[in-house]
Amino acid sequence: MTQPLPELLLEPLVRAALIEDLGPNGDATTRAVIGPDVTYSAQLNAREAGVVSGVQAAVIAFRLVDPALKVSVQHPDGARVAPGDTILTIDGAAASILSAERVALNFMGRLTGIATLTAAFVAETKGHKARITCTRKTTPGLRLVEKQAVLHGGGSPHRYSLSDAILIKDNHIAAAGGVPQALRTARDRAGHMMRIEIEVDTLAQLEQVLATGGADVVLLDNMDTATLTQAVGRVAGAVVTEASGNMRLDRIAEVAATGVDYISVGALTHSAQVVDLGLDF
Amino acid sequence: MTQPLPELLLEPLVRAALIEDLGPNGDATTRAVIGPDVTYSAQLNAREAGVVSGVQAAVIAFRLVDPALKVSVQHPDGARVAPGDTILTIDGAAASILSAERVALNFMGRLTGIATLTAAFVAETKGHKARITCTRKTTPGLRLVEKQAVLHGGGSPHRYSLSDAILIKDNHIAAAGGVPQALRTARDRAGHMMRIEIEVDTLAQLEQVLATGGADVVLLDNMDTATLTQAVGRVAGAVVTEASGNMRLDRIAEVAATGVDYISVGALTHSAQVVDLGLDF
Amino acid sequence: MTQPLPELLLEPLVRAALIEDLGPNGDATTRAVIGPDVTYSAQLNAREAGVVSGVQAAVIAFRLVDPALKVSVQHPDGARVAPGDTILTIDGAAASILSAERVALNFMGRLTGIATLTAAFVAETKGHKARITCTRKTTPGLRLVEKQAVLHGGGSPHRYSLSDAILIKDNHIAAAGGVPQALRTARDRAGHMMRIEIEVDTLAQLEQVLATGGADVVLLDNMDTATLTQAVGRVAGAVVTEASGNMRLDRIAEVAATGVDYISVGALTHSAQVVDLGLDF
Amino acid sequence: MTQPLPELLLEPLVRAALIEDLGPNGDATTRAVIGPDVTYSAQLNAREAGVVSGVQAAVIAFRLVDPALKVSVQHPDGARVAPGDTILTIDGAAASILSAERVALNFMGRLTGIATLTAAFVAETKGHKARITCTRKTTPGLRLVEKQAVLHGGGSPHRYSLSDAILIKDNHIAAAGGVPQALRTARDRAGHMMRIEIEVDTLAQLEQVLATGGADVVLLDNMDTATLTQAVGRVAGAVVTEASGNMRLDRIAEVAATGVDYISVGALTHSAQVVDLGLDF
Amino acid sequence: MTQPLPELLLEPLVRAALIEDLGPNGDATTRAVIGPDVTYSAQLNAREAGVVSGVQAAVIAFRLVDPALKVSVQHPDGARVAPGDTILTIDGAAASILSAERVALNFMGRLTGIATLTAAFVAETKGHKARITCTRKTTPGLRLVEKQAVLHGGGSPHRYSLSDAILIKDNHIAAAGGVPQALRTARDRAGHMMRIEIEVDTLAQLEQVLATGGADVVLLDNMDTATLTQAVGRVAGAVVTEASGNMRLDRIAEVAATGVDYISVGALTHSAQVVDLGLDF
Amino acid sequence: MTQPLPELLLEPLVRAALIEDLGPNGDATTRAVIGPDVTYSAQLNAREAGVVSGVQAAVIAFRLVDPALKVSVQHPDGARVAPGDTILTIDGAAASILSAERVALNFMGRLTGIATLTAAFVAETKGHKARITCTRKTTPGLRLVEKQAVLHGGGSPHRYSLSDAILIKDNHIAAAGGVPQALRTARDRAGHMMRIEIEVDTLAQLEQVLATGGADVVLLDNMDTATLTQAVGRVAGAVVTEASGNMRLDRIAEVAATGVDYISVGALTHSAQVVDLGLDF
Repeated sequence: MTQPLPELLLEPLVRAALIEDLGPNGDATTRAVIGPDVTYSAQLNAREAGVVSGVQAAVIAFRLVDPALKVSVQHPDGARVAPGDTILTIDGAAASILSAERVALNFMGRLTGIATLTAAFVAETKGHKARITCTRKTTPGLRLVEKQAVLHGGGSPHRYSLSDAILIKDNHIAAAGGVPQALRTARDRAGHMMRIEIEVDTLAQLEQVLATGGADVVLLDNMDTATLTQAVGRVAGAVVTEASGNMRLDRIAEVAATGVDYISVGALTHSAQVVDLGLDF
Repeated sequence: MTQPLPELLLEPLVRAALIEDLGPNGDATTRAVIGPDVTYSAQLNAREAGVVSGVQAAVIAFRLVDPALKVSVQHPDGARVAPGDTILTIDGAAASILSAERVALNFMGRLTGIATLTAAFVAETKGHKARITCTRKTTPGLRLVEKQAVLHGGGSPHRYSLSDAILIKDNHIAAAGGVPQALRTARDRAGHMMRIEIEVDTLAQLEQVLATGGADVVLLDNMDTATLTQAVGRVAGAVVTEASGNMRLDRIAEVAATGVDYISVGALTHSAQVVDLGLDF
Repeated sequence: MTQPLPELLLEPLVRAALIEDLGPNGDATTRAVIGPDVTYSAQLNAREAGVVSGVQAAVIAFRLVDPALKVSVQHPDGARVAPGDTILTIDGAAASILSAERVALNFMGRLTGIATLTAAFVAETKGHKARITCTRKTTPGLRLVEKQAVLHGGGSPHRYSLSDAILIKDNHIAAAGGVPQALRTARDRAGHMMRIEIEVDTLAQLEQVLATGGADVVLLDNMDTATLTQAVGRVAGAVVTEASGNMRLDRIAEVAATGVDYISVGALTHSAQVVDLGLDF
Repeated sequence: MTQPLPELLLEPLVRAALIEDLGPNGDATTRAVIGPDVTYSAQLNAREAGVVSGVQAAVIAFRLVDPALKVSVQHPDGARVAPGDTILTIDGAAASILSAERVALNFMGRLTGIATLTAAFVAETKGHKARITCTRKTTPGLRLVEKQAVLHGGGSPHRYSLSDAILIKDNHIAAAGGVPQALRTARDRAGHMMRIEIEVDTLAQLEQVLATGGADVVLLDNMDTATLTQAVGRVAGAVVTEASGNMRLDRIAEVAATGVDYISVGALTHSAQVVDLGLDF
Repeated sequence: MTQPLPELLLEPLVRAALIEDLGPNGDATTRAVIGPDVTYSAQLNAREAGVVSGVQAAVIAFRLVDPALKVSVQHPDGARVAPGDTILTIDGAAASILSAERVALNFMGRLTGIATLTAAFVAETKGHKARITCTRKTTPGLRLVEKQAVLHGGGSPHRYSLSDAILIKDNHIAAAGGVPQALRTARDRAGHMMRIEIEVDTLAQLEQVLATGGADVVLLDNMDTATLTQAVGRVAGAVVTEASGNMRLDRIAEVAATGVDYISVGALTHSAQVVDLGLDF
Repeated sequence: MTQPLPELLLEPLVRAALIEDLGPNGDATTRAVIGPDVTYSAQLNAREAGVVSGVQAAVIAFRLVDPALKVSVQHPDGARVAPGDTILTIDGAAASILSAERVALNFMGRLTGIATLTAAFVAETKGHKARITCTRKTTPGLRLVEKQAVLHGGGSPHRYSLSDAILIKDNHIAAAGGVPQALRTARDRAGHMMRIEIEVDTLAQLEQVLATGGADVVLLDNMDTATLTQAVGRVAGAVVTEASGNMRLDRIAEVAATGVDYISVGALTHSAQVVDLGLDF
C-alpha cells in the first residue's frame, strides 16, 4: 500500500487551491443564500469505475474550510471503485461542504483519472516483469499528487525532479560532445547516490553506451518492438532498461513481452481523462 | 485580441513551476554534462495543428531561468498553427534552454490543448449567437492560465471564482428553502455589481425563477435539446440563458440552434487533450 | 446578518499583523517583566458608541498568540455598542493578552470606525430605497476587512477588485475613443457574469450611454442634487443608478430622496475616525 | 532629509497591494476597453496643501505594473505641496497607468495625511525642544510606511515593534508586582543596547521610578499640564521625558512649554485625514 | 529563566527546515520500509556535557511531522546536562520519529553548542560584573534561535538587527566625516528609544567620543588588556563599556577584571562546536 | 569546475538573510550617519588561507541591497586564496556596501570554512580512489549552499534530502523486521531511478546484505580500520562502499588506504571553522 503524502507538503497545495477557488473574499453564493445552521450529510460518489486518488487532498480541503466537518473515508487512495460507490462522506454545515466541494472534486477527478489510466497500463503488463512508470510531463504545480496518483494506480516512481537523477537525452549528448564525454563527466559528478540514465535511439548508440559504461539505466526511445527486443537482448541485464516513446495502451502487452524492465508513459499524467465523481446530498 | 495577463500575477505561477521541476538543488544533468559556453538555437515547434496558448508563460520560463536567453515569438497566444510551425525561438546557453524546456512545454501543451478544444466548440456555434464558456472545473492552481486559454480559443469568460458572482445550484436552493427564498436573499446581499445566476432542471423551475425575478442569468442544466428550445422560447430574452450539462462537441451545433445565449463546457478545462509540441535544436 | 469571513482568508492577515507588531524576536517587555504563571481576566470595552467590527480578527489574534487563552464574545461584529459595553473578554496568561492587545485594538478601532460611519450614512437613507456602498479607496492590504466592516455597518457591497466588474470611468472612455466604443467592446468581452458600470458627468453623456446600451449600472458622478434628480428620472429604472462624488453625510438624505439606487462613499473606508476601545484588567 | 526605505522591505508591501487591487485575474476594465498602444501623459497632483509621503511607494507601484512607464518625481517624500502642485508625472501605456493609479493614490493619500498632520503638530512645538513622535497605533500591515510618514512630517521615531525597546505600562507593572520589580528584571534582561521606558500616571509613581533607577525614559501618561510641568521639573534631566495621552493639536504648544522632551501622539497614525490627490491626464 | 520564543516566529523556521530535509516528496526510506503501525519509544540523549538549547524547536519539529507523537521534555532549554542524560522522549509512529529526527538534531546540536560555549565564557567572568554578549555574526536565517541560545547559556542580548540600535563603526565614522559629525546626526535621528554605540580603537578616539557626547555605549575594539583598563578607568561609568575583538576564552577572566561592562564574542555564534546528541530507541 | 547554483533557488535564501539582518525597518546606522552621495571602493579580502565558497551569494547580497553597486570577482567559488588575497571588490554607495557587508561575510565565512575543511579531507585521500562526501548534518535552511561548498572544496555529493535516495539505517532495519525485509520492500518501491544504501555495523550484517541483494551502496558504519579493510575486501566491488562514523582528519589517509569508495564526514558541514574574511575600504 502506498503511504499517504506528508501533510507538511500536501496541505499548502490544497490551501492554495481553496484560496484560488474561494477568490479574494469568499463564497458569495453560500454566504448570501445559506444560513449558518443548515447542515447536510453528503456523499462523494463515483459515477464511473476507476482507481481512486486524491482522497487525502479532498479530506484536507473539507477540513481546511471547516474543521468541524466530519469526514469519513470509505474507499481510500488506491482502492478500486464501481459506479455508485461512495468514496467518502461528509457531515456538517451545508455552506462549508458546498464551498469546499469544487476543489475536492477538481483534485479527485483528475487524480483518479491518472490512477485509473495507470492501472489500465499496468494490467497490460500482466505476466511480464515490466513496470509502468511516468515522466516529468506533469501539470505545473501538481507533480506531488500526480506522481502519487501513478503509484495509487500500481505504477512505479521515476525521478521526481531535475535534481534527483541524471537523465542524459539526445540534446545533452550533442552539447556534451558525444556519449562517452557525457557519461564520463556525469559519472564523475553524480556521486554514489544518484542514478544515471541515458537515452539511445538506435542499437549503434546502445553499443556505445555499453562500451563506455557508467550508465545505470538505458532509455530505449521511440523504438519499434522488434528493435526493442534486440536491444533488451543485447543489454542482457547489464543495465536496467526503460522503453519510452509512443507507448499507447494497445501496444503495452507487446512491449512488455520484449522483457524490458520499465515502460514510461507521459500520457499517464498529461492525457488521463478526468473520472466522473459527484457530491450527493 | 485577448490582452496578455499581468506579469505580477503570471510570473509567480511560472516561478513555482520552475522551482518544482528544478527540484531543491537544480538540474543535475545539465550541470554535470554541459559546459557554460555551449550555446544553442532552439525552436519550439507545433507537431499538431491547434490554437496556441501558454506562450506568455513559456517566455517567462526561459527568462526566469536565464535572463540572457533571447526569445522571439513567431505565433503569439491565440494564433492558429499547423504542424511544423515555429511558435517561438530561443537562442543562448544550451544548459539554460534545456533546464527550462520541460516547464515551458508543460504549460504550452496543456494550454494549447484547451485553446484548441475551445476553438473546436466555437466553430460549431457558427451562424448562431451562442458563445462557448467554461466552468470552475479547472486544474487546481492553474485557473488563471486555463481561463485565459479559453479566451485564446475564442471562448467567453464565466465567473472566475466563488467571490465574483452568485451561482445558485440545486443544493443551494434546497439549503435556502426554495427558489424564491434563495433569489430574494441573493438579490438583497449581492449589491449592484454582482450578477446572479440560478440553475433550473425543469421548465417548472424555470417558471418559478421567472415569477420570482432577481436572476440575471438562468442555467438550463442537463436538458435535452427539445426542452432547451422550449426554455429559451419561454425566457424570450428576459434573462440571459446558459445551457450546461453533457455538452459534447457533436451536440453543440444543435444546442446553439436553440437560440441559447451561452453554452458552458466543463470539458474545455478538465478534458482537453494535450497538444504535441517539441523543442528542436 | 453578515456571515463571518473565511478563516483561510482572514487568518493570514492577522498573522502578518502580529508578526509586524511582535517584531523579529518577540515582545521584549512581557518577556522581561512578566512571569509565565501570571494570569489575567481582561475585558475589551467600548469607550464610545458605535457599530462593532473587527471582532473576528481580534479573536484570531488572541488565539494565534496563545491558543490557551479563553476568549468569549459579548458583542459580535455588526452589533451596536454604547460606551462601557464589553465586546469581548479574555482569560489566561497576562503576557499573552498583553502581547496581542495592540494588534486586536488596531484592527477593531479602525474597523469599528468604518462600520460606525457606514451606519451613520445608512441612517440618512431611511425612507428611501437608496443603499450606501463603498469604493476601492481602502487601506492597502486591508480591503478584505474594510469591505466587511461596511457590511457590518449596513452598507452594500461594491466590486471587490479590478477583476470582478467593469467600471468605465472618464479616462477609460477617452482612451477607448468614446462611450459607444467603450461600451461595445466591454459588453463583448465581459461575458455574461460580469456587470458593467459606466461613469457619466452630464445628462448628455447619460443620453449617450442609454442610447448605446450594454451598461448595467450608470455612475452619476459629481452631480448636484437637481441634476441627479433629472438623471434618475431619465433613467427610469432602465439601469441601476449610483450617485458618487462629494457625498458628505449631511447631504445623503437629500441625495437618497432623488430616488437613486446606490450612493457610494469613499470616505467610509478612507476617512472613518478610529473608535476608542480599550482593554481593561 | 529622511532617507528612502530599503526597496527590499518596501517592494513586497506595494506588490501585495497591487495584487489585492488587481484581483485574481487582472484589471477587467482596461483589458476590455483600452488597446495596448494608447499612451498617456499623466500627472499626480495635490488638490490640498500638505507634506508629501508615499511617493516612493507610488513610484514602485507604477514600475511593478509596467517597467516601461516613465515616472519622474517633482516633489519627493517630505516636500511641502500647495493645491495644484504636481508631485509626479507618468508617461506610457494608458492601461498600465490606470491599473496602478488606485494603489498609488491609496498609499499617497493616507501617508501624505500622516505627514501633514505630523507637520502640524511639529509646528506647535516651535521654540521648545519637545519633539513629536508616534505610537504603535498604526494600521495593521503598514507600520513601515506610516512610521516613515511621521519622519517625513518632521516627527521623531519611537520604538518600531515590541522587539526593540521595553515599555513598561501599568498592566505590566501590576503583573510584575510593582515598579521596583519591573524595572529590576527589565534592566537585568534588556542588555546594554535596549532602552527601557516606564509609564507613570502620578507624581508618586514618578518618585518610585526615580528612586528605583534603571529607566531611560519615563512616560508621563494622561497628566494635565500643571502636573506635567511638575513632573518635568522633578525629573530635571535625569531621564528622558515623554508626554502622552489626550495630546490634541490645540494643546501641544502648552505641553511643549512644560519642557518635556517628547510628545507622543497616537492620532498621527490612527486618525490622520486622507489628503486629496488626483491623477490628471 | 529565559522565556520560550513566540511560536508565531519559531514555527516557520522549523517548518522550513523540515521541508528542506523532507525534500519535494517526502522521506523515501521510511515510506518504503516502515509500516504505519510500527511504534517506537525514543530518547533524545546527550552524549557530551553541555547547556541545552533547541528543545523548543525540536518539540515543534516532531509535532509538525506528526501531531500524534507524544513528546515530553526532561531537560528544557537552558538546563545543564551530563553525558547520557535524556533531554526529551518521543513516543509514537516509528516512521514519524525517524523522519523528524535529523532536523531536531540539527537544531539542537548547533544551538546546544552555542549555549554551552556561552556558558564557558560566562564562567570566566565570575566575580566581575562583566556580561558576555554576542554579535551579528550569526548563521543566515538562524539569528532568532542562535541569539536565544546565547541567552540559554547565560549571555546577555546585543542588538538584534540593523534596525533596533545604532552602532557606529570605523567605516561609518569615516563616511560621516568624523566622530562628532557621526554622533550628532545619530543622536538627532535616533529618537529617544534607540541606543547609540560607537567604536573606538584608541584612547584618543575615546576622548573624542566623551567630549562629543551622545553615545550610550562605547565599543572598545581590539585593545590589549592594559589599554582596556585605562579606557574603562577613563570612562568611569559615564557610558556603558563593551570590549570586543580577539576575545578568546582564555583571555576573558583578565578582560573581565578590567571592570568593563560587556564583552562581545563573535565566536559564540560563528565558531561554537556542535554538541553530540543522539536519538536512542 | 562546479557550476553556479540556479539564481531561482539561491536568491530567496540571500534575500531572506538580508531581511533578517536589516530588521523590520532597515539599517538605522547608515541611514542616520551616512549621506546618500558618499561612495566607497571596498575589497573583500581573505585573512586566512582557504578555498573560497559563498561568492555567488555575496554578489547577490550586494546586488539586492543596491543594484547600482559594481561588484567584480577576483577569486570565484572553488578558488584557493592566501591571506591578503582579494576575493571581490565592490564600488558604489558607502551606505549600501555597509548594509550588505555582514550578510555577505556571514555567508562567505561559513561556506569558505566548509570548502576549506573539505579540501583538507580531500588532500588526505591522495593516491587513493576514495572520495570525500558529506551528510544531512547541515545547518537548517542552508543545505543548498553548504552542500555546494563541499563541492567547491573538491568533495562529492551525497543524497540531498530524504526524497532522493533510500538510506536504510539500523533503526529502519529494526522497524522493518530485518535486513532482508527492508531491502526487498525498498527495492520494490524505489523504482529504477533511486539508489538504495544500507548501513552495516558488522561483517555479519554485511554478509546478510550481500546475500539479500538489492543494495547499491553499503554504509560501513563506525568500523575500525582493520574491519573496514576486511569489509571492502569482502565486497570486492559488488556494491559501492562508504565509510562513515568517527572520520577524523588524521584518520582519513588510513581509511582511504582500505580501498573504500567514499568517506562521509558529518563534520564538513556541522563543525567547519569559520574562515576569517574582512571588508577593507
